Amino acid sequence: MPQPVCAIVGAGEGLGRSLAAKFAGEGFDIALISRSEKGSSAAAAAAAGANAGANVKFFAADATQPDTIEQALATIVGDMGDVDVLIYNVRGSFTACEPLEMTYADLDGIYRLEVVGAFAAAKSVLPAMRERGRGSVLFSSATAALRGSATHPLYAIGKFGLRALSQSLAKAYSKDGVHIVHVRLDCDLDVPLMRGYHGDSFDPEAAANTDDVAEAYWWAHQQPRSAWSNEIELRPYTELWTC
Amino acid sequence: MPQPVCAIVGAGEGLGRSLAAKFAGEGFDIALISRSEKGSSAAAAAAAGANAGANVKFFAADATQPDTIEQALATIVGDMGDVDVLIYNVRGSFTACEPLEMTYADLDGIYRLEVVGAFAAAKSVLPAMRERGRGSVLFSSATAALRGSATHPLYAIGKFGLRALSQSLAKAYSKDGVHIVHVRLDCDLDVPLMRGYHGDSFDPEAAANTDDVAEAYWWAHQQPRSAWSNEIELRPYTELWTC
Amino acid sequence: MPQPVCAIVGAGEGLGRSLAAKFAGEGFDIALISRSEKGSSAAAAAAAGANAGANVKFFAADATQPDTIEQALATIVGDMGDVDVLIYNVRGSFTACEPLEMTYADLDGIYRLEVVGAFAAAKSVLPAMRERGRGSVLFSSATAALRGSATHPLYAIGKFGLRALSQSLAKAYSKDGVHIVHVRLDCDLDVPLMRGYHGDSFDPEAAANTDDVAEAYWWAHQQPRSAWSNEIELRPYTELWTC
Amino acid sequence: MPQPVCAIVGAGEGLGRSLAAKFAGEGFDIALISRSEKGSSAAAAAAAGANAGANVKFFAADATQPDTIEQALATIVGDMGDVDVLIYNVRGSFTACEPLEMTYADLDGIYRLEVVGAFAAAKSVLPAMRERGRGSVLFSSATAALRGSATHPLYAIGKFGLRALSQSLAKAYSKDGVHIVHVRLDCDLDVPLMRGYHGDSFDPEAAANTDDVAEAYWWAHQQPRSAWSNEIELRPYTELWTC
Repeated sequence: MPQPVCAIVGAGEGLGRSLAAKFAGEGFDIALISRSEKGSSAAAAAAAGANAGANVKFFAADATQPDTIEQALATIVGDMGDVDVLIYNVRGSFTACEPLEMTYADLDGIYRLEVVGAFAAAKSVLPAMRERGRGSVLFSSATAALRGSATHPLYAIGKFGLRALSQSLAKAYSKDGVHIVHVRLDCDLDVPLMRGYHGDSFDPEAAANTDDVAEAYWWAHQQPRSAWSNEIELRPYTELWTC
Repeated sequence: MPQPVCAIVGAGEGLGRSLAAKFAGEGFDIALISRSEKGSSAAAAAAAGANAGANVKFFAADATQPDTIEQALATIVGDMGDVDVLIYNVRGSFTACEPLEMTYADLDGIYRLEVVGAFAAAKSVLPAMRERGRGSVLFSSATAALRGSATHPLYAIGKFGLRALSQSLAKAYSKDGVHIVHVRLDCDLDVPLMRGYHGDSFDPEAAANTDDVAEAYWWAHQQPRSAWSNEIELRPYTELWTC
Repeated sequence: MPQPVCAIVGAGEGLGRSLAAKFAGEGFDIALISRSEKGSSAAAAAAAGANAGANVKFFAADATQPDTIEQALATIVGDMGDVDVLIYNVRGSFTACEPLEMTYADLDGIYRLEVVGAFAAAKSVLPAMRERGRGSVLFSSATAALRGSATHPLYAIGKFGLRALSQSLAKAYSKDGVHIVHVRLDCDLDVPLMRGYHGDSFDPEAAANTDDVAEAYWWAHQQPRSAWSNEIELRPYTELWTC
Repeated sequence: MPQPVCAIVGAGEGLGRSLAAKFAGEGFDIALISRSEKGSSAAAAAAAGANAGANVKFFAADATQPDTIEQALATIVGDMGDVDVLIYNVRGSFTACEPLEMTYADLDGIYRLEVVGAFAAAKSVLPAMRERGRGSVLFSSATAALRGSATHPLYAIGKFGLRALSQSLAKAYSKDGVHIVHVRLDCDLDVPLMRGYHGDSFDPEAAANTDDVAEAYWWAHQQPRSAWSNEIELRPYTELWTC
């Protein structure tokens, strides 16, 4: 009997790894989509470690090239079966700049990564989910989706767009039984990228543990459809949040 | 060995009943607080039915009289032990009126019910929770907390205030390990009150099932503290939401 | 020929003074409502200075006693004529405290000041405005209306409630031609109260000039009804805003 | 002595026409930027009609081609002088579709129109405005900037991105004295495009008059810098708004 399939676009060594392990541990087969198999090796190992019986496979695609996302997900469906849970979890370089320093290439890149790639992934699985009347699509986002930034305008522009996409999909297709969720991290994640970004000022108590965050994705997938959350915020108990 | 205690203020036949059953089923003793024991009898029966070993007790208090809330919770602590989960779940009469029809007594009543009573309940348990470094306080709210209303201004004024209180408590005391949550229902609940209010136009597919909603409260209590939600929205898959 | 009437509840030496001067200078008669005539003397002098022909009068009322507000506005209408512009601009003591230090008297006081008094003032003028198909009601508010606070929870609870009231009135009565506006200051005002509160750390470049703020109230009143703002935010160019 | 310059990108027969007339009437020279001179002829005529002494000129550019926007604005500065007010007011075809019907070309087109073009225009004038310590940049937006849509997802994705850009610019450059504003129309405009879109169901009382909207742009430019609005909402008195 086939196991349900969880496809993770952007399955790196941070949250992607925790998501792969969580869903594998809950009985899912795991499809990992990244640019290079090396980039997903930590996630693959974690999934296998969480459940030796899980079918864990890697598929190459570049989130900024929507055709490659479509092709990867088509291959996954042919190879592993319909996707029950899609998680779009890509991360860019998170470069700081002031708004006037943005280039047109920067603007194009962040949009392809955060919005176009997310749409490519969603459109690859939503028709089948709608037909079956179930399935979850989860987008990893951030508080940057709610406010502009003097120092990280690219990130804000990308995440605003991702939120618009997520809300539009949810409003159009929830009625078909498909659960679409924008997961907003109101904090840094405790991942190598953030540790490198903040250097010595990094405080793990002020960051979210990726295994803890993965619990929220799992819970969102488990929610009964009469009481769905479409936007979920997550922050550590130490966060001095403002909105 | 004592079981953890869940205190529910406003434990009627709708969501209160589902919450009592859920937390009893998860191993909690249940303290039910309502104006009359009769009003909590369905919740008491549901809790006992979910877990015959649960200690389920009723305590009388009037949410619009904060002293009675304080007294009830003091009695609960003395009788059943420290409160691990407090749920403030009162409901008023939800009367429709246009803003200019509100009386000063109406304004006073809704504030006492939604804000002052919620504060009285929270202040009765928060010092002990802070000392122990754990515990959850959950406020039942609604989308009325986000927008005024031409037809239900009292409900909006009360829920705006409740949200301000919930955010203020969360910002002040999360750092001590206490999880404070504003649960926003963006829909009607499938409860007798709403069936009566809407009459023949009531559509159960457009309302949230109370057992499903209770799952979200349970999940909120279970969240690890590095990834907490402080505001949770819930709506049925059929809801045409606007925000 | 009678001049239009602007009634200002809470006409102190800060924003109230600037509002009185602005509307007097634009040809309005000015009704000043405060607890004591002394508290309104700076506003009265400013109004007279801005327009020697303006009829400027003081009326005693306590914003926390809604009956006195109703009586004062009834007296104004009988004495000076229908009110064309009502500005509710009261300020409390803005005491800092953590949420658990709030007393029930504090909670009652802030609600009476920010919500009940605002409603009393609005209901005293709205029926006549609706009948005439014009008029403006402007509520002085703050960013505290959008977010709870670990240090000023009373202010947040009051301003959330005021915003709910303002939105509810706007949604109910805009169609009758009455312009109802929530003016949100996302900053401190450069007024004696704030200078005293902040002491040496007060930076006038980081605060709004009250004459500049009064321009926004005037503009709101002038807006043509096909393009109204119902919520207006104001902040100095130096403000590092977050929402 | 040179007059101040107002540059309008997207100067069609609707709001663009009203903006051109308003700023010309207030003593500005007007630079109109559209794809074709014919598209700006109504705006040019209105500006000339409002002020025979105004210098009104047309400059060709395609908002989806950022280089052409940069070139047009460089030409304007060389020809007419520094830009004091920039208004980005483009409109696309506003095609309805469900989210899964969006093409990658659609996604690219709306982003170029709403975000990349807006950035190209802003970066062409902001350095000089910052140096002089004054100037206004106004973006025409809509309630679609605040919520996704089941029927107009492209519009939402574009306007969310535009709002992120506007907020980011405001947070970075307000301190230099440049006023950056996101003008949100919470309604349809009474323009030919909307009359055509709605057909017989179009109700002019439910739409904003473009001359009235232009007043708000003028007011925003006039605001003193100690009390700026960075986001302005506008709706007709008949609008049943929801947020």
